[in-house]
Amino acid sequence: MPEASANIGVVGLAVMGSNLARNLASREGNTVAIFNRSYEKTQTLLDEHPEAGFVPAHTYQEFADSLQKPRTAIIMVKAGGPTDAVIDSLLEVFEPGDIIVDGGNAYFPDTIRREKAVRETGINFVGAGISGGEEGALHGPSIMPGGSDESWVTLGPILRSIAAVAPEDGEPCVTHVGHDGAGHFVKMVHNGIEYADMQLIAEAYDLIRRGTGKTPAEIADIFAEWNKGELESYLIEITAEVLRQIDASTGKPLVDVILDQAGAKGTGAWTVQTALSLGVPVSGIAEATFARSLSSHPEQREVARILPGPDEEFTVTDVDGFIEDVRRALYASKIVAYSQGFDEIRAGAVEYGWNIDLAAIAKIWRAGCIIRAQFLNRIADAYVENPDLPVLMTAPYFVDALTRGQAAWRRVVSTAAESGIPAPAFSSSLAYYDGIRADRLPASLIQGQRDFFGAHTYKRIDKPGTFHTLWSGDRTEIEAEDTH
Amino acid sequence: MPEASANIGVVGLAVMGSNLARNLASREGNTVAIFNRSYEKTQTLLDEHPEAGFVPAHTYQEFADSLQKPRTAIIMVKAGGPTDAVIDSLLEVFEPGDIIVDGGNAYFPDTIRREKAVRETGINFVGAGISGGEEGALHGPSIMPGGSDESWVTLGPILRSIAAVAPEDGEPCVTHVGHDGAGHFVKMVHNGIEYADMQLIAEAYDLIRRGTGKTPAEIADIFAEWNKGELESYLIEITAEVLRQIDASTGKPLVDVILDQAGAKGTGAWTVQTALSLGVPVSGIAEATFARSLSSHPEQREVARILPGPDEEFTVTDVDGFIEDVRRALYASKIVAYSQGFDEIRAGAVEYGWNIDLAAIAKIWRAGCIIRAQFLNRIADAYVENPDLPVLMTAPYFVDALTRGQAAWRRVVSTAAESGIPAPAFSSSLAYYDGIRADRLPASLIQGQRDFFGAHTYKRIDKPGTFHTLWSGDRTEIEAEDTH
Repeated sequence: MPEASANIGVVGLAVMGSNLARNLASREGNTVAIFNRSYEKTQTLLDEHPEAGFVPAHTYQEFADSLQKPRTAIIMVKAGGPTDAVIDSLLEVFEPGDIIVDGGNAYFPDTIRREKAVRETGINFVGAGISGGEEGALHGPSIMPGGSDESWVTLGPILRSIAAVAPEDGEPCVTHVGHDGAGHFVKMVHNGIEYADMQLIAEAYDLIRRGTGKTPAEIADIFAEWNKGELESYLIEITAEVLRQIDASTGKPLVDVILDQAGAKGTGAWTVQTALSLGVPVSGIAEATFARSLSSHPEQREVARILPGPDEEFTVTDVDGFIEDVRRALYASKIVAYSQGFDEIRAGAVEYGWNIDLAAIAKIWRAGCIIRAQFLNRIADAYVENPDLPVLMTAPYFVDALTRGQAAWRRVVSTAAESGIPAPAFSSSLAYYDGIRADRLPASLIQGQRDFFGAHTYKRIDKPGTFHTLWSGDRTEIEAEDTH
Repeated sequence: MPEASANIGVVGLAVMGSNLARNLASREGNTVAIFNRSYEKTQTLLDEHPEAGFVPAHTYQEFADSLQKPRTAIIMVKAGGPTDAVIDSLLEVFEPGDIIVDGGNAYFPDTIRREKAVRETGINFVGAGISGGEEGALHGPSIMPGGSDESWVTLGPILRSIAAVAPEDGEPCVTHVGHDGAGHFVKMVHNGIEYADMQLIAEAYDLIRRGTGKTPAEIADIFAEWNKGELESYLIEITAEVLRQIDASTGKPLVDVILDQAGAKGTGAWTVQTALSLGVPVSGIAEATFARSLSSHPEQREVARILPGPDEEFTVTDVDGFIEDVRRALYASKIVAYSQGFDEIRAGAVEYGWNIDLAAIAKIWRAGCIIRAQFLNRIADAYVENPDLPVLMTAPYFVDALTRGQAAWRRVVSTAAESGIPAPAFSSSLAYYDGIRADRLPASLIQGQRDFFGAHTYKRIDKPGTFHTLWSGDRTEIEAEDTH
């Protein structure tokens, strides 16, 4: 029986798990136990990184024996069945008070279910969203753990040791998000926002390219320039890198030889599906998710080529002015997308009884994760100022930005529509903006229609109660029970 | 023990059930058994409609005894638990070969589950979507039954006897949609399309009202006029009725005293959630669903009033031209919404192994249901011509309509954006149109970004295989396993 020498273990040594294990091992005070279903990967990791001082295990029992109590293990395997299988195996060898962390991309209702089941054994279960990809896992991810307060006592220092560090104040990008599935929920919304952010950038690129005829390399310079201002973010930075890349085999810009069918791994769809259940309009994320599915149906796009576009060719006369308009439209749309995403977190917290500090969420996204951006400091400020802010974009800083940007935003959406360039995320963000600020919406007509065909009743602006017009009778109004 | 005198039974005698029972009883050849959990409602229906010749039952056993074999009963109770409870009770008194029909608004996965469970007893279970509200139930609904072929032999003639009749050819608005949950699936999408249709009408109204200053009564005349042309439909017709209605207590147009917060009963959200799982972009339905949720958050709308709109007041100079533009934009957007909805049905049929005749679906929606419209004949024609049409709006008739309408559509979306009037469904439909017909989409940039931060790989336009650029290495391209 090996000595219980490790303070943390990692199960699952594919690239994310290996990198996370190496990250853990590189931090002062950590000794890392490692386990993989087939020992081959364990051996490879041992051979390639002798400096890490890993404690390898051939069996779950050996793995458990090598861990100090309370045992703490991070599972890094595929979501779904494989995760459940590892949990079951760990439950056989762990004891009450130990901690099992699922660091995969689990769907948060699964995490809620697992936490409940594992808790009954006296063992702690923590679903932790980990963002930043392979590089993040190795050098410092943004980590979104849920789970119990008890497990946070042990886990907090370990996760803080490996998390990314915000450049502004040196704070590690990890916080105890909330109980049970809160961490995976927030990670899901993070990914949804990422979809929206990427789609907005793609639309900005497309508009500039088609409107000005600039090359990808020239547009790379524009993005690099934008990255020095209020749009500064990892995604803008890598967009410039991708656009600048030349394909070696053809000499063409890489972006022109990549097939234009965007893949997706499901978290965008989950974010929207969850928002629909919560009654939160996340139109920017939805349009981004739909834009990817649309792109991935070549058989449909092939036949749809017969649909005509505008008669006139699209060319921009004031090139610099247009580019600046697009920049402002991108920033304004991005504010809307984040506002919608934070709205979903707020609604999720209410629905599931999580006490989520929205400012803390913005802060832990400032480094390590894909949507890291300067901009997140402004979001954190807004929620520090008013933790109960009902709509993020109504914070003074954002109102100011939107006020400055809206004319450009309107011109860009208008230009896209007139010129036949799809800008679903730009235009849906603007429609949301104009919807939420409207004094009066035509939803009253919809209520009238619903009452007409389905007796769904309506409320009035001038008195309490619920009403129904006898549409197929004498069309008088009656008070109705509020059951529809 | 009563004589088995009824050929059809109805369980659940709230307004939909009562009306359906009366409809059944009014048709030649039907004798209708009725049952309700509390006998009071049964007695009321008996008293109020002696002409119907109902066969009442006090217990499930009596109800079963009063039905000829194979016994056929339609359940008209609330979706969820109440439906399961009635099914369980019927299973105790029915025999193999009998038929249980759920006529409620069940979520189709529930119907798939129930069909499977009931089938094991040898009894048939049919989930049937019924559209048309209370009036439809009484005078002739559009009916979308799923379930087995065996049950259709008995059920078909009964449902044909009560369904609405298409005015064009006298065909009853019912068809055997497909097995197990196919009927409720199609009913769900019907409702999703209904959401989109209503939202588009609401946007058209709002644009005309705010752009021209016309009164609701004047706009009612416009809708009544539109109802004589290609937009002819029940929803356009009732829109005119609602807009013309004057509130008795204030003397104002009713639409101005109805609270502008639209309710929803979940089928729109289901349609979008399902589409997301199927990878089908139903952006029109999504925006319509989101527009309702947005309207229903008064606490958010209140604070969002500080967000500024455009500096200039919106007024249209060419009023008639603008109204005609809006009409064309409405028609074009409606084509997109239906194209997306039928796309979802097609994808659902593939996913769940249903053999759905899309032309037949268009035909049974021509009367009885909320989205009934002249326009559905054109959809039926398109699918008769080509049952495998990959995108509905690429059928010649629709290409022609979109070609004629697109310039107006673009002007309207552009005007909405410039003038600060939310038109989420108009603009998302146009963005979808421009997206699906695009030669090249910026999805290639998104694939580049995904490969950069997550090694998600990409495909190329010029050769098969899956590739990855070593972004953090020397930036050469390698062939990759297609696992991401």
